[in-house]
Amino acid sequence: MNDIAASASAETLTPAEVDRIDAWWRAANYLSVGQIYLLDNPLLREPLQRAHIKPRLLGHWGTTPGLNFVYVHMNRAIRQHDLDMIFVTGPGHGGPAVVANTWLEGSYSELYHDVSQDAEGMRRLFRQFSFPGGIPSHAAPETPGSINEGGELGYALFHAYGAVLDNPELIACCVVGDGEAETGPLATSWHSNKFLNPRTDGAVLPVLHLNGYKIASPTVLARIPRAELESLLRGYGYRPHVVEGHEPDAMHRKMAAAVDTAIAEIRTIQRAAREGGETGRPLWPMIVLRSPKGWTGPKEVDGRKTEGSWRSHQVPFGEMDRPEHVRLLEDWLRSYRPLELFDDGGRLRPELAELAPRGERRMGANPHANGGKLLHDLRLPDFQAYRVDVPTPGGAIAESTRAMGRFLRDVMRDNPDNFRVFGPDETASNRLDALFEVTDRTWMAERRDDDDHLAPDGRVMEMLSEHACQGWLEGYLLSGRHGLFSCYEAFIHIVDSMFNQHAKWLKVCRDIPWRRPIASLNILLTSHVWRQDHNGFSHQDPGFIDHVVNKKADIIRVYLPPDANTLLCVTDQCLRSRDLVNVIVAGKQPEQQWLDMDAAIKHASAGIGLWEWACSDQDGEPDVVLAAAGDVPTLEMLAAIGILRDLAPQLKIRFINVVDLMTLQPREEHPHGLSAAEFDTLFTRDKPIVFAYHGYPWLIHRLTYRRTNHDNLHVRGYKEEGTTTTPFDMVVMNDLDRFHLVMDVATRVPALQAQAAHIKQRMRDRLCEHKQYVHLHGEDLPEIRDWKWAR
Amino acid sequence: MNDIAASASAETLTPAEVDRIDAWWRAANYLSVGQIYLLDNPLLREPLQRAHIKPRLLGHWGTTPGLNFVYVHMNRAIRQHDLDMIFVTGPGHGGPAVVANTWLEGSYSELYHDVSQDAEGMRRLFRQFSFPGGIPSHAAPETPGSINEGGELGYALFHAYGAVLDNPELIACCVVGDGEAETGPLATSWHSNKFLNPRTDGAVLPVLHLNGYKIASPTVLARIPRAELESLLRGYGYRPHVVEGHEPDAMHRKMAAAVDTAIAEIRTIQRAAREGGETGRPLWPMIVLRSPKGWTGPKEVDGRKTEGSWRSHQVPFGEMDRPEHVRLLEDWLRSYRPLELFDDGGRLRPELAELAPRGERRMGANPHANGGKLLHDLRLPDFQAYRVDVPTPGGAIAESTRAMGRFLRDVMRDNPDNFRVFGPDETASNRLDALFEVTDRTWMAERRDDDDHLAPDGRVMEMLSEHACQGWLEGYLLSGRHGLFSCYEAFIHIVDSMFNQHAKWLKVCRDIPWRRPIASLNILLTSHVWRQDHNGFSHQDPGFIDHVVNKKADIIRVYLPPDANTLLCVTDQCLRSRDLVNVIVAGKQPEQQWLDMDAAIKHASAGIGLWEWACSDQDGEPDVVLAAAGDVPTLEMLAAIGILRDLAPQLKIRFINVVDLMTLQPREEHPHGLSAAEFDTLFTRDKPIVFAYHGYPWLIHRLTYRRTNHDNLHVRGYKEEGTTTTPFDMVVMNDLDRFHLVMDVATRVPALQAQAAHIKQRMRDRLCEHKQYVHLHGEDLPEIRDWKWAR
Repeated sequence: MNDIAASASAETLTPAEVDRIDAWWRAANYLSVGQIYLLDNPLLREPLQRAHIKPRLLGHWGTTPGLNFVYVHMNRAIRQHDLDMIFVTGPGHGGPAVVANTWLEGSYSELYHDVSQDAEGMRRLFRQFSFPGGIPSHAAPETPGSINEGGELGYALFHAYGAVLDNPELIACCVVGDGEAETGPLATSWHSNKFLNPRTDGAVLPVLHLNGYKIASPTVLARIPRAELESLLRGYGYRPHVVEGHEPDAMHRKMAAAVDTAIAEIRTIQRAAREGGETGRPLWPMIVLRSPKGWTGPKEVDGRKTEGSWRSHQVPFGEMDRPEHVRLLEDWLRSYRPLELFDDGGRLRPELAELAPRGERRMGANPHANGGKLLHDLRLPDFQAYRVDVPTPGGAIAESTRAMGRFLRDVMRDNPDNFRVFGPDETASNRLDALFEVTDRTWMAERRDDDDHLAPDGRVMEMLSEHACQGWLEGYLLSGRHGLFSCYEAFIHIVDSMFNQHAKWLKVCRDIPWRRPIASLNILLTSHVWRQDHNGFSHQDPGFIDHVVNKKADIIRVYLPPDANTLLCVTDQCLRSRDLVNVIVAGKQPEQQWLDMDAAIKHASAGIGLWEWACSDQDGEPDVVLAAAGDVPTLEMLAAIGILRDLAPQLKIRFINVVDLMTLQPREEHPHGLSAAEFDTLFTRDKPIVFAYHGYPWLIHRLTYRRTNHDNLHVRGYKEEGTTTTPFDMVVMNDLDRFHLVMDVATRVPALQAQAAHIKQRMRDRLCEHKQYVHLHGEDLPEIRDWKWAR
Repeated sequence: MNDIAASASAETLTPAEVDRIDAWWRAANYLSVGQIYLLDNPLLREPLQRAHIKPRLLGHWGTTPGLNFVYVHMNRAIRQHDLDMIFVTGPGHGGPAVVANTWLEGSYSELYHDVSQDAEGMRRLFRQFSFPGGIPSHAAPETPGSINEGGELGYALFHAYGAVLDNPELIACCVVGDGEAETGPLATSWHSNKFLNPRTDGAVLPVLHLNGYKIASPTVLARIPRAELESLLRGYGYRPHVVEGHEPDAMHRKMAAAVDTAIAEIRTIQRAAREGGETGRPLWPMIVLRSPKGWTGPKEVDGRKTEGSWRSHQVPFGEMDRPEHVRLLEDWLRSYRPLELFDDGGRLRPELAELAPRGERRMGANPHANGGKLLHDLRLPDFQAYRVDVPTPGGAIAESTRAMGRFLRDVMRDNPDNFRVFGPDETASNRLDALFEVTDRTWMAERRDDDDHLAPDGRVMEMLSEHACQGWLEGYLLSGRHGLFSCYEAFIHIVDSMFNQHAKWLKVCRDIPWRRPIASLNILLTSHVWRQDHNGFSHQDPGFIDHVVNKKADIIRVYLPPDANTLLCVTDQCLRSRDLVNVIVAGKQPEQQWLDMDAAIKHASAGIGLWEWACSDQDGEPDVVLAAAGDVPTLEMLAAIGILRDLAPQLKIRFINVVDLMTLQPREEHPHGLSAAEFDTLFTRDKPIVFAYHGYPWLIHRLTYRRTNHDNLHVRGYKEEGTTTTPFDMVVMNDLDRFHLVMDVATRVPALQAQAAHIKQRMRDRLCEHKQYVHLHGEDLPEIRDWKWAR
């Protein structure tokens, strides 16, 4: 590990430069303390009084001075080396630092005119922080230059790597807190360097900030021997440069030297790859910054060590009714010598302001961190060209995701630097392998002859980490590009909380005019619950949909296309959309196809509709409404209709298929929701409804409990029964099979009363026969496997 | 990195020993292939025919021979060194290996009598695998000796570490697949060694199995230079021993030497800590096993490389209607020379059977892997002793979790080797710091003078990784101990999928008679959505409850105790329970207390009930039913009742508090559910109900949509609105505040029709006043902060 202290290059800075950098740092620290504590008297023109201090003190000082330190040094480097750089703030509650620096550089006031670069603006800057109607304590969507919320920790490096993909000139300086570094996602995200191509991607400069403490405990990485830490970081594939200490002047010199070294190494790596034809994986530089927690804060509070201790994690001291605490705060603030930093009007002195980069080179104004500014529409081929030929309903067999894969292949071909596909090693398994006709899997680590489509410039990113897939994609989207994450349905729960945070980010952005729309986060859930019969109970979980619909209605969409052509329509729609999370659930197994392309377009546009060819209520009101959402439920319901036709040909059946789940909600709840009249027209006001649903059945009740006919709604779905068995046995275990559905109809339809007992006995016999066959042969009855819809 | 090939200790084994170990290994491999392929003809007594082969081939061969290899070597080591060892199977789909080995050692047939140790038993063993009515492909609950399901990857090391805590003689051999090693949780779980005390805990022997491939892609750790891998593992704090190759004899010698070295190192470390007084953190040994994927399988299939390739990940070849594939399978099976391994009756030959350890030393029979066998009840002090004195409702202020902390302190004191508390550095922040009166935070890394309660023998485990907390606790519970995980409510979503897998494990165990009940997984969610006003929107998410209730009703419990005494009752109940996941949501802020201990016991036992002192319907039917679940909703609803008393003293109000959320579900759906009659008695059949709920409001609808009076139910809860603001403003943003609740009542109660407009205007005025004050002062109106219930 290069200790920059010992390096000759420590003479990067002249004493005057050190002074100016230190002045900026003091200014940022001053503004950070002000945000946490002050309501008024921002420039301390009068002696500090209790009334100038917020009644309720919120905020986190501990990480802030370190972030300020990194920021000013990156500013220097941007100017010195003409860098295009963004700042990814990993540590939690780092908001005050980024807000302070962007205010100093001017980008803050350009976006928030009322927080101007003067004394009144500074007063507002202070007041708004963690204040009702103000701004949060994290580097949130409201924060200029941010693409990573420091609320839920662990994703900073993924976001940074995602942002620099296909951005060869961009450098993401990513500060990783040593608390955050303990999380699982962060621990594996260091390996992102095996997926970064120095020829066509930019660079990430990680700054591991060891300030030693979390809330109360020390951090693991700060308490292992230095040699062990070095070994770990080298093992992750980095070349670490250490900047350690607490004396400001020396630290500025060391940091400047470390940054210059790292930038030089990045340039060398990129030149070798871009001009020298180097194709191996480089060891990228990184910086380890070890500085005291709450650096430059009060050494002691009430006789207890504070700077360099866990005690400075949040607000280092409160109880501001104690005059000695007011004095302590005033002394602390004045220790930054504000009069040297700001003129009488509260403006940063011009010689300091010059330190900031210009225009979009300011990290608070870099368009990569407001990706919508750079967003180009995808060049989308006509999705109809990938149609599956469906001469009659049920008259074709296809794997839905394979058709989607051919579409995605050409999207990939036509958008060679603006679109990527992510998945935990399941792209081919999920039948999207047509992609490999035009690209490869991204891979910078060692390659061997027998490998399957690996290349440094591959654009399909596979790592056995759903966190990586989601995190990289988020970074890629937030910086203005497009993508898709394909995942086994059960294991998408691994990123439940990442989805939460992204959905919250999008929701907040709706109210921030300067945040431009970005491409939607598209998640394909295939290898879904009903066809995980071979992988067993642990692979069977359709609950992500339930999780998704708890988020704001105008952010989330859920699609359950029943066949390939509908899936193509939905995919096209999702790839064109903005600022949403689109969840698509679609199977990968060979299944009957229902709709030709024209019918699919009509159906997908409406999101819900009658399939007339499966209905027998053309001449009036139905006796029963049968509905299905999802490919397997659709198949079973149609098979049930086939049985009912034989057993009760007089029965008037209406069949409804739901592709856009949110149509079920009242329009007041979701923009795609049907009006009450539309819903009643479809589902009737009083007829029995049997609904076959892909996931947990109660979700349909939760969406429809306000609907007129809800009392007559009976839903079948996954009720958490499963194991390693056959596909049909899976639906039987959950009462979602054709035979149970027929029994449900027989039980509920008055017109069938006379026949009900007979029908139910027939169905029970069929179920018996099924169980016997399956337990004997280990596969489904041929008549079930080979069942075909026929009018 | 010690390469065992070069080591003199490679002569651990005599040639005869090598032969016997290899024979066992061949037997296990034979049984593994048989499980994947064969229906019949288990001993190949006749030429293999299509009819002997399963019609549907399921399973994963790739990882299996490596697991078999490790298993037999651990068997040797157990006998040689008299070890108490369990086997944690990280790699996915490793079921066939563990099943094969436990059948060979006899522990399988002891639990499954019909799968006897003879030819018929072998036939059944083969047939049942991944077959309807049979067993899954993972090391699942059904698998003897397993405490880790290889379905969702990433938790093996956490489970292993959790199991050896407070088990000083136990060693957990934990095989980590190189696919699994890419996950976030696994990547950080290596650091568990900073929390393992060699004096009082056992040891984990990780075996990182590099077979090079996932489904289709290579693995990261198999494709970095050996020096880099060594550096990484040393950086994680291990001393790696490498066993690399493919030639069986040489590999057996290397592996035996590596295992002996590792065991010797473990013994040395433990002696130093237990007898030598060593208190520093040791470098624990681990093994890196690099062997071909699908080792000993067919070298080529249809001309394409298979052994040592990703192509052997699943079933290496199918299409068994092709005679050459039947021949290939027969040749493969016969390559293990089954006649040398099994006698005519299908029994393992006695000289091989002797290789197995005896009795409970067999890893399939080790009671630590069936923790219920070792479970002792907690010694529980009388929870009533920790009561908060509540002279009248609202007549005391307390922090609920602080009272719970005092109870937990004494539970910890009285169960010094059977109870641990886990949390991501939030134990003190969550007001459970009374625990530190009797114990410390577990910490084996470097300590400093100013640290706060760190010690090697601490029993509060804090790492900034919810995955670590959950994973360690699961391992601790599955091996027969007790514990509690306290977590910020929003961030428990990080382990949504781990909860899923544990709940599925418990569900499956209900049908496995030999799996003895284990202590419940207790999760305390504090720092909940309503008091994350200071941390902002990213910290506000009550959706874990929604996630939990999708799992099987007999596994899950959700409690929302409204005050400290109720929380004490619930905690006691949870600590006594078995085989459940108990989720407790309770705040940590100072709040009014409602129930004295007698009332709390009555209320918590019923789970739901009237609070008569808040009702005014004593003389008949109520005009309105007001209900609340959760501490903040209870407060707001009681405040609303206070306002209604002033404005509409004639109104007959019934107030219901819900502490056990599952009482709301019909009894047919959940064992705690109220009967229809009970529910109707409480909630009436036709009166308006206004329900103030802690989480997303639609969950209450989902639980109650079958109830008689559901149409009159109006629920307020979190509707995904929030930011950094004041506590009361949080409820206002979500319409859950007292003023909105009063308006809801005014809108819905016919008896108030004449007054409704007036009441609503008053409430709107109060809301205006609130907004103005909050935006001016940054804190809530004193009359709201200081509001007290008074009859």
